[in-house]
Amino acid sequence: MRLRDVGEFGLIERIARIAGRPAGRGVVLGIGDDAAIVRPRRGEDLAVTTDALVEGVHFRFATQSARTIGARALAVNLSDLAAMGARPLGAVLALAAPAALPLRTALDLVRGLVALGRRTACPLVGGNVSRAGETSLTVTALGAVARGRALLRSSARPGDRILVTGTLGGAALALARAERGGAGIRVVPEPRLGAGRILARTRGGGACIDVSDGLLADLGHVLEASGVGAELDARRLPAPRRFAAACARARLDPWELQLMGGEDYELLFTIRPAGPTASVLARRLRVAVTEIGTVTRRGLRLRGARAPARSGWRHF
Amino acid sequence: MRLRDVGEFGLIERIARIAGRPAGRGVVLGIGDDAAIVRPRRGEDLAVTTDALVEGVHFRFATQSARTIGARALAVNLSDLAAMGARPLGAVLALAAPAALPLRTALDLVRGLVALGRRTACPLVGGNVSRAGETSLTVTALGAVARGRALLRSSARPGDRILVTGTLGGAALALARAERGGAGIRVVPEPRLGAGRILARTRGGGACIDVSDGLLADLGHVLEASGVGAELDARRLPAPRRFAAACARARLDPWELQLMGGEDYELLFTIRPAGPTASVLARRLRVAVTEIGTVTRRGLRLRGARAPARSGWRHF
Repeated sequence: MRLRDVGEFGLIERIARIAGRPAGRGVVLGIGDDAAIVRPRRGEDLAVTTDALVEGVHFRFATQSARTIGARALAVNLSDLAAMGARPLGAVLALAAPAALPLRTALDLVRGLVALGRRTACPLVGGNVSRAGETSLTVTALGAVARGRALLRSSARPGDRILVTGTLGGAALALARAERGGAGIRVVPEPRLGAGRILARTRGGGACIDVSDGLLADLGHVLEASGVGAELDARRLPAPRRFAAACARARLDPWELQLMGGEDYELLFTIRPAGPTASVLARRLRVAVTEIGTVTRRGLRLRGARAPARSGWRHF
Repeated sequence: MRLRDVGEFGLIERIARIAGRPAGRGVVLGIGDDAAIVRPRRGEDLAVTTDALVEGVHFRFATQSARTIGARALAVNLSDLAAMGARPLGAVLALAAPAALPLRTALDLVRGLVALGRRTACPLVGGNVSRAGETSLTVTALGAVARGRALLRSSARPGDRILVTGTLGGAALALARAERGGAGIRVVPEPRLGAGRILARTRGGGACIDVSDGLLADLGHVLEASGVGAELDARRLPAPRRFAAACARARLDPWELQLMGGEDYELLFTIRPAGPTASVLARRLRVAVTEIGTVTRRGLRLRGARAPARSGWRHF
C-alpha cells in the first residue's frame, strides 16, 4: 500500500494512532485540531527549534532504516533543546513525501520518532502531511526552561574553560565508512537533555551549543556570538574507543573527523574559572565531560594539530 | 547570485537581517541560537501549528511572486492560530531549496513572510535552511491563548447555529482562472486573527475551524470531532461580489467552488442557540458573518444545492 492509497486524512489517522494520547500534564491538546496546545509551568519560558531531514541530503533509505531516520529527525531537535537547557514539551512533524512512498515506510518514520519521543518525554502533538517530490521530515520541538535561565551561545567570557560531553568524531567515522559501502548507520544520537538541564542550573555556567556542524564550526558560533576567542588543545579531544586504530585502518585523518565532523550532538559549553571541574561536572551531568581549551579575548588557536583547511558542513 | 554562492550561514545571516530584532515582549530570543525563546503571559496556554508549502504542489514560481508565496506560508499557519482563538507569539521557518535557486528569490520568500508577520505581530524568531531538490517552506507558528479558552473542533452541540466569516469560493475561483492561464494569484489570505480572539471570549461560543480544505471537508472535521451532524443551506453561503457572473463566464459551477473549494481561510464556527446573532457577531468581530446552517444529531443534509460527488482537497 502506498500513500496515495490512504490519502491525507487516512495517513493522519494512522499517525495519530501511533502517537497515541500524549502523556504528561504539559500537553493540553494533541493531534487532531487546528493547533496543538501545550502548557509550560508558571515562570517558564518556551524554547522553539526546527530542523529538517531531506532525502538524498541528510539521509538515504538505502543506508538507514525508516525508524532510525524518524528518530534522528526528532533527536537533532532535542539536541537543540538540550543545548538551551530546556525540558521537552512536545514536537510537531511536517512530513512531505511522494504519493508512491510505501505507507509502511511513512509509518516507520513516525514510529521511530514517536519511540524516541516516549523515551525523552517529548510526545508528537501535531503536524502536517503533504505530497512532495522527495521525502523530508521537518520537526519543530518545544521545550520549557526556567525564565531567564536558558543556555545561550553568547555567554562565553575570556578565562572560561571550554568543555565537551561524551566523545567527538564517532559520527563522522561512521558516515565515512557508510559512504564507502560499509555498514549502514544505525546510531541515533542521544540528545543530552538531562545534562543540558543540569547545566542550566549550574553556578558558574557560561555558553552552550550542541556539536552538529562540527567542533570548529560550532565553537566558531559561540565565539562569534560572545565576541571572544579560544585556545583549543586537540590532544585532549575525547575520542570513542579504538578510534585511532579504526581511522588508521580506514586511512582517515582522526583530527579532521574530530575537529570538523558533524552530528556528534554532544554539548560544547564554557564554565567560569571558579566553576566546577570536569570531574565534578561529569558526576552531576551523568556523562563523560572533558576540558578541551580556554576562552581567550580573540582569535582561534589550535594546539596539538595542524589547522584544517576547511571547517564544518556546508549546506549549499 | 545563487544559494550555493552564499552558503548556509551567509543565507541565515541575510534572513536574520530581514527579520530584524523581534518587537514585543513575547520574544526573549530571536534568530541566532540553538532555539528561539518566547514568553507567554501568566495563565496562557501555548498553541503550536505547522504547515508546509511545496513547489509544484502548493505553489509555482510562474504564477505567484516569491513574496506572495512567503506570505502565504505564514498566513495558512496564522489562520490555524486564528481558528484556536490564539494571539501570535512568533514563527519559525524551515526553508528547503535547490542550491541553484536565485538568492533574490529565497530572500523574497522571507521578505513576504516577514512583512505579513509585522502586520500581524508574529515575528520570525528562528528556523532552518537546507538543500533540497525542490523549494519548500515549512512554517511553525506559536500562539498564546487564555488557559482553557482555546476554540476546539470538538465543541459543537446539536442546536448550535453554524456561521462563517467573510465569503466563500473566491480563492477557488482565482485558482481555477490561474490554472487556465489567466492572471496570477496575488491574493494572500487575511488570517482572521482578531475575529478568532474575540470569538474565544464570546459567551455561547462552540466549535471553530478555518476553511482551508473546503467548506464541506472542514465542516466534516468539526462534525466528526464533535460527534454531531449538520444541516447546511447552500443558498445562504456568502459569495464574493459578482461571483455568480464570474463563474458563469468561466463556465464554473459556483456551488462546487463554494462547497468544495479550499484556501478561503475564513472561520467556520458554531454558536449556542441563545448566543449572539450574526449581525451582533459581525459588529464585534469586525468582519462579515453569515449564518449558514444548524448543528443536528447526525448526518449532513444540504439544502438548496445538489450534494457534490467529491469534497475537499486531497493531498495524495
